[in-house]
Amino acid sequence: MFTKDDARWMARALELARRGRFTTSPNPAVGCVIVKDGELMGEGFHRRAGGPHAEVFALREAGEAARGATAYVTLEPCSHHGRTPPCAQGLIDAGVARVVAAMVDPNPRVAGRGLAMLREAGIQAEAGLMSEAAEAVNTGFLHRMRTGRPFVTLKLAASLDGRTALANGESQWITGPAARRDVQRHRAQSCAILSGADTVLMDNAALNVRWNELPASVRHAYAENELRQPLRIVIDTQNRLHAGLRLFAQPGPILLLRGRVTGGLGDEVEECVLPLSEHGKLDLALLLQELGRRQLNHLWVEAGATLGGALFAAGLVNELVLYQAPMLMGNPARGLLALPEFTAMSQPPRLAWQDCRFVGGDLKLTARVTD
Amino acid sequence: MFTKDDARWMARALELARRGRFTTSPNPAVGCVIVKDGELMGEGFHRRAGGPHAEVFALREAGEAARGATAYVTLEPCSHHGRTPPCAQGLIDAGVARVVAAMVDPNPRVAGRGLAMLREAGIQAEAGLMSEAAEAVNTGFLHRMRTGRPFVTLKLAASLDGRTALANGESQWITGPAARRDVQRHRAQSCAILSGADTVLMDNAALNVRWNELPASVRHAYAENELRQPLRIVIDTQNRLHAGLRLFAQPGPILLLRGRVTGGLGDEVEECVLPLSEHGKLDLALLLQELGRRQLNHLWVEAGATLGGALFAAGLVNELVLYQAPMLMGNPARGLLALPEFTAMSQPPRLAWQDCRFVGGDLKLTARVTD
Repeated sequence: MFTKDDARWMARALELARRGRFTTSPNPAVGCVIVKDGELMGEGFHRRAGGPHAEVFALREAGEAARGATAYVTLEPCSHHGRTPPCAQGLIDAGVARVVAAMVDPNPRVAGRGLAMLREAGIQAEAGLMSEAAEAVNTGFLHRMRTGRPFVTLKLAASLDGRTALANGESQWITGPAARRDVQRHRAQSCAILSGADTVLMDNAALNVRWNELPASVRHAYAENELRQPLRIVIDTQNRLHAGLRLFAQPGPILLLRGRVTGGLGDEVEECVLPLSEHGKLDLALLLQELGRRQLNHLWVEAGATLGGALFAAGLVNELVLYQAPMLMGNPARGLLALPEFTAMSQPPRLAWQDCRFVGGDLKLTARVTD
Repeated sequence: MFTKDDARWMARALELARRGRFTTSPNPAVGCVIVKDGELMGEGFHRRAGGPHAEVFALREAGEAARGATAYVTLEPCSHHGRTPPCAQGLIDAGVARVVAAMVDPNPRVAGRGLAMLREAGIQAEAGLMSEAAEAVNTGFLHRMRTGRPFVTLKLAASLDGRTALANGESQWITGPAARRDVQRHRAQSCAILSGADTVLMDNAALNVRWNELPASVRHAYAENELRQPLRIVIDTQNRLHAGLRLFAQPGPILLLRGRVTGGLGDEVEECVLPLSEHGKLDLALLLQELGRRQLNHLWVEAGATLGGALFAAGLVNELVLYQAPMLMGNPARGLLALPEFTAMSQPPRLAWQDCRFVGGDLKLTARVTD
């Protein structure tokens, strides 16, 4: 059983965990708080893969005061030697009396073993306090641990009547500057950004994170010199991308899914040839498996109606983020998503609302695909 | 200058005014509160055209206590003999000392003359307290007084990608029961419902108000025996509607815009032939003028992409109500609005957000067309 005070301290640990959300990937963001006699003895969060875990910072700060204390962690303490020693052992060595974890770590190398280690050492170890909030901090990591694939968010921007561009292709700008800053925030929180050659060629899109275009709240929490560029992935099976594009002028790693490897696109560009499906299209499920293997937790997709629709139709999209501008573009304008034709109203995919808010002059809708 | 107490009493008067919103048309909904020495002496609201105005009820309740009191009215007291004597005179006769109106009545037969009458009789008469809220109570009436046309709300229901039906025409049901109840509420508040022959034939739509399908909050405020059926207007220039439709089986007046008058559709059906535009289409601006002449304040449009788009393109839509279901129907499905093709992003009409809320499992967006 958890008390009101337990919840208060866990809320603090979750707040700390969120501070790592731009930098910990491929690791999860984790926060830890150490409390004795109702007082905070130490706290910390995981900042970067390879660096100390949240528990290490918190125990270091608590020092001798950790003995007999309660440790609140937003994810089950690890039980394995990775790049750092197991945190469960660290908590045992420090002599804490009780450990409260928001949730069990689904990572197959942990999966309850951290809590078991603690219990075997005589520590009272529990999990399940504010687990929903803890899930939300690590949506991508947890999804990858459970499925082997990154969590996929498909970003779309449209008019009220679901149009993304005029019939002649013009689309700049449907949404306003606040929505575009919000997209920068999502990019910064993602491990990778996926797009198609069409989109990159049409907009000459760089697909990078631009620190000075991030919302002020993010710039406040995330120093410019810590800026991490997500992996930019572009599907270019017809080898249409060329070295003159803005994509290649911006620093940061790039993965191109191509028809053949040509080289000559720069040091940070990896070209990769994946087997095509029977219809001559890239096998998107295979691509996502490969991205999971590369430890990418959260994939942010900025693509056109064709790639977006293909991902959706293949059941690979987990979440939709739709920015709606208060305008009407009419039926001749281009549609949002190419899906196979449905013949009964029971067939179109139904989503579950997550959030709805105004971002500047646009409405931002978030909905999840339910299984 | 108005005081905090003035605002409190006007809020009460507005609350009373809203009680008439289902029944006063073609008159405005008006509320009145009479206050002396900080105490409520009488109150009332206008319930039905031809019946007493709000001021009459309030003065009747106040009796002798009206002498020296302040009267709060949500719309300038009338100065003309209509079906009832002028309320300004009633207030003068009752001996009130001060009149506060939320707004001047733009009705050309009043337009400041009510306030002038009061002032000439030595009463302190002011207008402009909570005028925005007062505007919202009588959107339709005020628009008609200012333009001669009804205020037009276009209702649409679509998937997140702006689709209203599958390619094969199937569309039942995109939105859920709560959204459909909300539509019943809008119908009940409207003076008329406009639709096209296509929509009526496809859905065999009755377009009436069904008391038992109204939201509980409305049923609570609006007795079944008071139920008023808005005028149902259907554009049927090709004379495709026939006597066997549900439309004609439900009681209430119907206006058909037809190619020629045939008769035989029932006592409550009026057939009307309006001149067609040069493209052989009904002149929608002329239709709205005619509806204004018939004292229809608020027109609720439930139509397909063609009629909705034509109204929009003609600049005749004032407000959009869009119910969005959390589903995706894909590009082969039918689009929301047939508009002429735009060739530059400066051309599509931009709207101003009014409201955004969940109605059951659907999102309801309201936006106004700005001039």
